[in-house]
Amino acid sequence: MYGRYTQDLSTFAKDEAARLRLQEGDTSQPRRPSELLEYTQGRCGPCRVCALQCQRFLISKVGEDWVFLILLGLVMALVSWAMDFAIATCLQAQKWMYGGLDTNVLLQYMAWVTYPTVLITFSAGFTQILAPQAVGSGIPEMKTILRGVVLKEYLTLKTFVAKVIGLTCALGSGMPLGKEGPFVHIASMCAALLSRFLSLFGGFYENEARNIEMLASACAVGVGCCFAAPIGGVLFSIEVTSTFFAVRNYWRGFFAATFSAFIFRVLAVWNKDEETITALFKTRFRLDFPFDLQELPAFAVIGIASGFGGALFVYLNRKIVQFMRRQKAINRFLMKKRLLFPALVTLIISTLTFPPGFGQFMAGQLTQKDTLVTLFDNQTWAKQGINDEFEYLGILEAWLHPRSNVFITLVVFILMKFWMSALATTIPVPCGAFMPVFVIGAAFGRLVGESMAAWFPDGIHTDSNIYRIVPGGYAVVGAAALSGAVTHTVSTAVIVFELTGQISHILPVMIAVILANAVAQSLQPSLYDSIIRIKKLPYLPELGWGHHEKYNVRVEDIMVRDICYVTLNCKYRDLQQVLHSTKMKNLPLVESAESMILLGSIERAQVGALLSAQLSPHRRLLMLRQKVLPEDGHQLSDSSIRFQISTETSSGTPARAALRKPLKPALKRVPSSPADSPPAGSTDHTGIALKSLFCANAATEPTEVRACVRRMGGPLLALVGRPYPLPCPMAPPQILEWEEQQLDQLVDFSSAKIDPAPFQLVEHTSLHKTHTIFSLLGLDHAFVTSIGRLVGMVSLKELRKAIEGSLTGKGVKVRPPLASFRDSTASTSEADTTALHQLWDRHQHHHMPREAGPGGDEDDDTPK
Amino acid sequence: MYGRYTQDLSTFAKDEAARLRLQEGDTSQPRRPSELLEYTQGRCGPCRVCALQCQRFLISKVGEDWVFLILLGLVMALVSWAMDFAIATCLQAQKWMYGGLDTNVLLQYMAWVTYPTVLITFSAGFTQILAPQAVGSGIPEMKTILRGVVLKEYLTLKTFVAKVIGLTCALGSGMPLGKEGPFVHIASMCAALLSRFLSLFGGFYENEARNIEMLASACAVGVGCCFAAPIGGVLFSIEVTSTFFAVRNYWRGFFAATFSAFIFRVLAVWNKDEETITALFKTRFRLDFPFDLQELPAFAVIGIASGFGGALFVYLNRKIVQFMRRQKAINRFLMKKRLLFPALVTLIISTLTFPPGFGQFMAGQLTQKDTLVTLFDNQTWAKQGINDEFEYLGILEAWLHPRSNVFITLVVFILMKFWMSALATTIPVPCGAFMPVFVIGAAFGRLVGESMAAWFPDGIHTDSNIYRIVPGGYAVVGAAALSGAVTHTVSTAVIVFELTGQISHILPVMIAVILANAVAQSLQPSLYDSIIRIKKLPYLPELGWGHHEKYNVRVEDIMVRDICYVTLNCKYRDLQQVLHSTKMKNLPLVESAESMILLGSIERAQVGALLSAQLSPHRRLLMLRQKVLPEDGHQLSDSSIRFQISTETSSGTPARAALRKPLKPALKRVPSSPADSPPAGSTDHTGIALKSLFCANAATEPTEVRACVRRMGGPLLALVGRPYPLPCPMAPPQILEWEEQQLDQLVDFSSAKIDPAPFQLVEHTSLHKTHTIFSLLGLDHAFVTSIGRLVGMVSLKELRKAIEGSLTGKGVKVRPPLASFRDSTASTSEADTTALHQLWDRHQHHHMPREAGPGGDEDDDTPK
Repeated sequence: MYGRYTQDLSTFAKDEAARLRLQEGDTSQPRRPSELLEYTQGRCGPCRVCALQCQRFLISKVGEDWVFLILLGLVMALVSWAMDFAIATCLQAQKWMYGGLDTNVLLQYMAWVTYPTVLITFSAGFTQILAPQAVGSGIPEMKTILRGVVLKEYLTLKTFVAKVIGLTCALGSGMPLGKEGPFVHIASMCAALLSRFLSLFGGFYENEARNIEMLASACAVGVGCCFAAPIGGVLFSIEVTSTFFAVRNYWRGFFAATFSAFIFRVLAVWNKDEETITALFKTRFRLDFPFDLQELPAFAVIGIASGFGGALFVYLNRKIVQFMRRQKAINRFLMKKRLLFPALVTLIISTLTFPPGFGQFMAGQLTQKDTLVTLFDNQTWAKQGINDEFEYLGILEAWLHPRSNVFITLVVFILMKFWMSALATTIPVPCGAFMPVFVIGAAFGRLVGESMAAWFPDGIHTDSNIYRIVPGGYAVVGAAALSGAVTHTVSTAVIVFELTGQISHILPVMIAVILANAVAQSLQPSLYDSIIRIKKLPYLPELGWGHHEKYNVRVEDIMVRDICYVTLNCKYRDLQQVLHSTKMKNLPLVESAESMILLGSIERAQVGALLSAQLSPHRRLLMLRQKVLPEDGHQLSDSSIRFQISTETSSGTPARAALRKPLKPALKRVPSSPADSPPAGSTDHTGIALKSLFCANAATEPTEVRACVRRMGGPLLALVGRPYPLPCPMAPPQILEWEEQQLDQLVDFSSAKIDPAPFQLVEHTSLHKTHTIFSLLGLDHAFVTSIGRLVGMVSLKELRKAIEGSLTGKGVKVRPPLASFRDSTASTSEADTTALHQLWDRHQHHHMPREAGPGGDEDDDTPK
Repeated sequence: MYGRYTQDLSTFAKDEAARLRLQEGDTSQPRRPSELLEYTQGRCGPCRVCALQCQRFLISKVGEDWVFLILLGLVMALVSWAMDFAIATCLQAQKWMYGGLDTNVLLQYMAWVTYPTVLITFSAGFTQILAPQAVGSGIPEMKTILRGVVLKEYLTLKTFVAKVIGLTCALGSGMPLGKEGPFVHIASMCAALLSRFLSLFGGFYENEARNIEMLASACAVGVGCCFAAPIGGVLFSIEVTSTFFAVRNYWRGFFAATFSAFIFRVLAVWNKDEETITALFKTRFRLDFPFDLQELPAFAVIGIASGFGGALFVYLNRKIVQFMRRQKAINRFLMKKRLLFPALVTLIISTLTFPPGFGQFMAGQLTQKDTLVTLFDNQTWAKQGINDEFEYLGILEAWLHPRSNVFITLVVFILMKFWMSALATTIPVPCGAFMPVFVIGAAFGRLVGESMAAWFPDGIHTDSNIYRIVPGGYAVVGAAALSGAVTHTVSTAVIVFELTGQISHILPVMIAVILANAVAQSLQPSLYDSIIRIKKLPYLPELGWGHHEKYNVRVEDIMVRDICYVTLNCKYRDLQQVLHSTKMKNLPLVESAESMILLGSIERAQVGALLSAQLSPHRRLLMLRQKVLPEDGHQLSDSSIRFQISTETSSGTPARAALRKPLKPALKRVPSSPADSPPAGSTDHTGIALKSLFCANAATEPTEVRACVRRMGGPLLALVGRPYPLPCPMAPPQILEWEEQQLDQLVDFSSAKIDPAPFQLVEHTSLHKTHTIFSLLGLDHAFVTSIGRLVGMVSLKELRKAIEGSLTGKGVKVRPPLASFRDSTASTSEADTTALHQLWDRHQHHHMPREAGPGGDEDDDTPK
């Protein structure tokens, strides 16, 4: 883990500084007088110099955070606005079709049902083909990614395209789906793509730690430009995706989200949708007396009921998914016909909402937006009926069915939408659950509000002034409470204020949201945590509220005791043994089996590389040559020697040749002056320093070792392509004998990269603190030591098991602590592995049992 | 540092669990049949059983977080409301006095000036006498405390009383002072006192980590109940006090702040001040067209100007303090007459605001609250003049001087209030700067708004509808921007929305606040950081925005290389040497001087204890006896032996005697069943386990060693009080000789408490990451290792120097990593130290130079 810290920021910055300084040196120093003369002598010389300077200035500015954030905000606002426009057009088209066919109910029904079915099926098919990662909300994945886990393919252009188009189609169908969660994902992808694009101009964007910070602000932008709610967006994204939040990075989110929301709303003004910048679902409640103190119990009831409702929603959603997966017949059938399930669900839901049919009892003809606008409306439906002042007259009629009661309509709406939303969010299209839940909550609040208004027609207040009850305020409270309960967040309150543009109901909303959270959190995980569990993402669950029993568990209770380790004075045979007996990604390196003093940790891949280097056919041939040479004095001797020399001096590429410079003393500070530092590859300083520290006597000839290891990638390939005639290889028994000899040699760790300070805990560290440290530092594993001696290991798996029972990650890769080391030598890794596998396979067949040793319980993929 | 983790939560919880189980065992098991019989047989037996159960239930509930938070919110709301009431009464009294004397201007002036002078002088004197810690804002101190630093006396009842009464008087005087900062401090003290009070009912509140979490929520409560702004309170307190925030603890702040704000506003309703719960400074801006898009540049100008203004305010405030301190003549004079400075400042300010005098040009007669109400007013002053509808007619007149222009009044107000506020906040009374700055910002916004309204009398919008410009909206934007610039926070935006009850200006406010922050942060530290610097509190400064050069600095560039260390096989003489040559609070323990493998860290006090134990007079006497005994066969021999035995078996108190149980194997889990664990003192498990691990052969007689060390506190005292006759002590030369012998012995570390996993960094860790880790984990120091070998050390001091140059802490104590260990043996520490000092002093006079060795640069108190 400190390996990671060692590398990321400092190295990149140093490289970058050196590069820039070199660049400056190229142009500012009079090294190339001809070029300068050309500039100054020509007619447009000054212009060109100026243009060059401008260009350089711009490029240097591109690296600054605020440029990135403004670009991100701008792009996301455009995306959000364009998508909203497209969705509105889609919904308009459906309404138009439905309206135009009002002569024939059957035709009307066909149009009403076919349109969404086609859209949803297209969306499902499109995402399935282009990028299956785009399915679903995306918030659980972002939560996992911000935790430090690498999820492949989740932040690519393909996924971006799939998500944007898929989401547009899905929302255009009019199904009860939301855009918030997907927008968080879209913004994150946008940030990742943008940083990849901007890295063409400068190296600042290759920094991993910075990119994670940018992803965090991208999440805020996603929510912010979806609801035009910058503050709520920042808070919601923090609550939903982070465990620990650096206040230092706070401003990034605010800046980008504000800019994005601003552009998003300005676009609406520009498009003449609005006269000026206002809230998305503007309310017009009275300001002087928003609510009576005696209405507070009703708000509290909304909060508590929403808590239960939110927990039920999460439970229902999970049960539907689990039911689909467990019923093998259904599962097999659905796997074959992947598009059938979305089409079927859409068919059912759109049939039920068909306005002339059952839809008339649940305001089925209203779009999500219209529903919200009517629910947040100022009037009291039950008592006053339709008021002439009201501008959404046509829309409001949907709620006031002539043959029915507004209460019945609301109850039916809530009940139907509840299971419809829970079902619809399981469709494999890009979709979120926030907005549907928000609408249901608003309807529930409206129901309570209308009941209160019917109960107290002239308000509760007993003074001379009559203040009627405002059911719209109850709808606002209900919306915030239910969405807060489902997502386990408090910031839905802020989102609600920003959405409605009124904050007068702050205390009822806060009370309801807190109560809803208290109830929901004690019953169910949040929707996103539930999806994380379903998808088995490698996330560390939260410790519950005040679970004091967690304080009683200590690291010694959960740690793995019999771990495999590598000793400093071990033989290659021991390495082989260790590799066969465990699947741990990082092996501890101890001084000796007796002392067990932990010296560092070595990556599994590094151990494999050491082993394969020792047993490589190339090295075997070299050995053979050297042995054969003095015996028979063959004619080949000359070329053989020449070949060996050539390996050492010219096999590296020019970039690698730059590394062959005298080693600096390990403890001396490496100066970063341009004259001294190489133009590239200086990321290897650490490795060199470690090496030279690690075995001082090996530091005299590091280049040879390095060249040897570097070329391990394709030794066979290199041999085939070589023009010199080679001696015939050894017979298999001889090879085995030779390899046996090699395995008995002591390991030379000088070429291996060792993390010199892996994270350590002591046995008595409590589970609570362990959880905190793992979350804070994004750890994957930690060694347990006792006064320098290794006694055990704790990984995410053990921690997860201790917190909530078994949960195994599948199909995802936890970032190894030395990821940044490995990235710098990425070219070798793949070929290395294949070479290694060949070696292993051979050895396993000959004298190694295939079963894992006592350390076999490290297997990450075994479900328990 | 892991020592701390080891102890805090788990141990307390275990103790608590064991205690509760024992209690249960006492009552639920039929151990005391007589008592039970008594209960069941008596007439009110069931009642008493029921009462007992209720009591037990209540006590168990007291330990839950929400009970604490509700109590905290309730108490703080009451305090806030009572203080507001008292302040309003004070201000009313002044107004009444001033109004009653309108026949004589001189008398009026006397009353106007004397009243605040007396109040401020009383406030300054009262806090000076009772608790000087109550002076000032309190937010800087809370920031430092939440960073993990122990500031003595900052959270006591005395300080609480001093702060509450001092603040009430200070605000009642009508000076431009605020209550926000002090309220954060008051709420924190309230939380600390409450948890101390509640710990009488259960042990849950003795947990240090939990108390820090509670302090964090208390800060939110402080802001929340001061402005009735729960959301803004939580965000502001996070931004101002935290570096990294655990989202897990988020709800605590929201819960407590909401409850507190609710009660605070309910009290106002109950007192008939308000009809229902509304915002504190309610505005009535129009909802349908809050502002024009083309007004945005004006809002941006307000933001940028506020940024400069905020930076200037912080600069001015600091310069005033520094001027007072540097001018030695002034300083000496003021130190003698401490109350003169407050009185003088009050006199000047109140003279200038005297309404019939200069005050008529700066609305001097308005209180802070009235000023805000008028500034946020709906009307346009410049054009329309006083409107009949306006209800604050009398108040508004203050701004519209007949012989002057409203613009001139505003400009004079802003300029005068600016330096007055900067000066007034340096008075040594409990006071904050938030509210004065807020008012100035509002006035500045109003000025811009009025200018805009004069410029565009019919609004900018060119359509048919005329939307006039609302200068009150500009005032809201200005208030948020300037207070955001001074405090470097974004959440002032949210506070403003909650204060005014309107969120319609969200985008202008956000834009202005972000711009103000960007400008102010690049010019000056925040006001609180500035005070931290002035007071030299041990706080780690923030890394600036995107200072890429910080990434180039590595730990190896800033670490201290020649640190003193203790080796495992050292002699007592070496310990003495180390203690003399360094002042480090924690010494690294390495395997040997050659290998330098870091095994752990040992506290300085522990080393001292080891040394004093070895050289204690008591031990010397014992040694002497044993040596003398066989030689002359004195009659004393019997009692001497008896005495020795008695030392070993009965010198401990009963609690300590409980510790004498067989040692468990170190690696075995310690079961926490009640039968096995002692009723008290089980916090020493760790120590025992460490000891037995550390030197397995010493583990056979740990009790003796422990008893010996434990009693080191007052060996001389013990000897004096002992009834047995003692042999005459050795002559000083003999003592010296004996001590020389003792110093040459090898150190027995079995009785010392060693932190087995001190925090480690590697040389290449960047400054950026080091800063992050120090902030995240609240570290004080970290050792730098290279593959297990100690190569250096980094402490807060080095880090601070590297970030911003030298800054030394004075008068405050950084919490040592083994604080919890030490707390459990707190009884010995003080006496130990004195005994140790005696020893040292003697040795220094004899054969040790007094000067510090090569490690002398560790001195924390030397200003550089």
